Amino acid sequence: MDISSFANGAAYIRGRFVPIQDASIPVTDWGFTRSDCVYDVVHVFKNGFFRLDDHLDRFAASMKARRLEPPEGRNEIEAVLHRCVALAGLADAYVAMVTLRGRPRVAGSRRPADCDNHFIAYAIPWIDVIPKDVQERGAHLHIAGIPRVPDASVDPTVKNYQWSDLTSGLFEAHDQGYDTAVLCDAQGFLTEGPGFNIFMVKDGRVLTPDRGSLHGITRKSVLELCAGMGIEAQAAAIPRSLFEDADEVFAATTAGGVMPVSRVGKRILGNDRPGPLSLKLKEAYWRKHEEGWHRTPVRPLDKMAAE
Amino acid sequence: MDISSFANGAAYIRGRFVPIQDASIPVTDWGFTRSDCVYDVVHVFKNGFFRLDDHLDRFAASMKARRLEPPEGRNEIEAVLHRCVALAGLADAYVAMVTLRGRPRVAGSRRPADCDNHFIAYAIPWIDVIPKDVQERGAHLHIAGIPRVPDASVDPTVKNYQWSDLTSGLFEAHDQGYDTAVLCDAQGFLTEGPGFNIFMVKDGRVLTPDRGSLHGITRKSVLELCAGMGIEAQAAAIPRSLFEDADEVFAATTAGGVMPVSRVGKRILGNDRPGPLSLKLKEAYWRKHEEGWHRTPVRPLDKMAAE
Repeated sequence: MDISSFANGAAYIRGRFVPIQDASIPVTDWGFTRSDCVYDVVHVFKNGFFRLDDHLDRFAASMKARRLEPPEGRNEIEAVLHRCVALAGLADAYVAMVTLRGRPRVAGSRRPADCDNHFIAYAIPWIDVIPKDVQERGAHLHIAGIPRVPDASVDPTVKNYQWSDLTSGLFEAHDQGYDTAVLCDAQGFLTEGPGFNIFMVKDGRVLTPDRGSLHGITRKSVLELCAGMGIEAQAAAIPRSLFEDADEVFAATTAGGVMPVSRVGKRILGNDRPGPLSLKLKEAYWRKHEEGWHRTPVRPLDKMAAE
Repeated sequence: MDISSFANGAAYIRGRFVPIQDASIPVTDWGFTRSDCVYDVVHVFKNGFFRLDDHLDRFAASMKARRLEPPEGRNEIEAVLHRCVALAGLADAYVAMVTLRGRPRVAGSRRPADCDNHFIAYAIPWIDVIPKDVQERGAHLHIAGIPRVPDASVDPTVKNYQWSDLTSGLFEAHDQGYDTAVLCDAQGFLTEGPGFNIFMVKDGRVLTPDRGSLHGITRKSVLELCAGMGIEAQAAAIPRSLFEDADEVFAATTAGGVMPVSRVGKRILGNDRPGPLSLKLKEAYWRKHEEGWHRTPVRPLDKMAAE
């Protein structure tokens, strides 16, 4: 195996490890033609996965909710993720796992139960949902007009690729010069943005939406950090008007961590820079990474070969 | 080019024609990871496309709505579809066209506008959304409990792959022994099923939902057939209770045409067989195909090579 071919990333498809540029799925896979798949993303920071078990738990729950059962069990999935990162030779990485419906075993069947589900994974260089320079000045956030798809129709806690409403929110945001967007549901309650959970700070209290949102692992980490730092924090129903009146706002995601926001719509927060509590949480989030918080070291290649 | 390799179908990807089994998309294409794509499907019956211009019009409208602009213009797209069918050597075919967001030109960008959109197409053997034997006895249809995603969040007239709610409806249907499902919106009005529009007949009048539904080309064809046959027909708001009280029900789709339903939930329609008006419309639909209605002959291969 020529390791150099994995320099841009490494993927696992149908039981084989391939360079990311060779990783593809058939155009007729229902994972594509019905977006009938679930996924998860874990990050690797300085050669260690962050909260790998939490991500594997959530991925398993997502698969169960959509009745997806790939041949690989949890231990094999975990081993695949390790090997993708090791093959790519990445100290910091964005690591995706996806289970797709696949194709029917029975020609012409239109039944999901007739399909051979399959699991794919890949490790690629780190991605920030909000670019680092924007994170420094604080993101400019648009509150989108398009309503988030209701939880009753598509469960947002089952991580999925059905981003049409989120993409529409991005169109609105970019048209008006904002960096990104957050959506409200049809009842006017705050939900999430494209690839991140949202938090607000009001009178020293931290709030994040209790609905219309993924149960993010970074969201969970922020709530734990707050508990450890004696900051009152909770998931709650957040009407748009309350959000517009926030003292501070930040986004939270695996692909970027705690990402401060400096403007919400036309409103400038504080001194148009990341807020003090947001920065404190961002600092704590990365400092605890350095300290080995919830860390699983990436298994090196030779060790795996010896297994 | 070895034509025999196209026996299972022919595809067009990134400017090249390839056998369907070799047609794939990168796992990192936003057309997959955000389901950020639009599609259309036209059928070929006895070497002729049916309503090709209508499908190309709708596809163009879908692309415009999602700001997707592939390099190929309309004439090139049309030529690609002809060539896929001719290469596959199919007299009857299911012909798909898809435009995907692609990947960002700018490394790390999360902006849809930074992506290189691309167009793919493929022709494969005919598919019936409801198997032919089930069409003969009449499909058993479940009215799903899961609500259809609202039009305000995801426009159903822009043909898309975001099928989560429809797939959930199929889970419900198959768990209870039904063939397929139809969904109502959160207000209790009838919408559509996984891959088809729905029609009902009450007191000789034909109705189809005016909301939550694709503006199907077969739906349009049925409304035209009704007009020509002096049958009153229209798109209307259809409360679930009205639908449950239907005299006849049928589904309509490119992949199958007019497909009668004989049971709706626990209710048996008529004599548990396709209804008389449904059969009359089904017969007219296919007879007019034979007569060359809205037909565009598939261009043979050698003719294209000479162009």
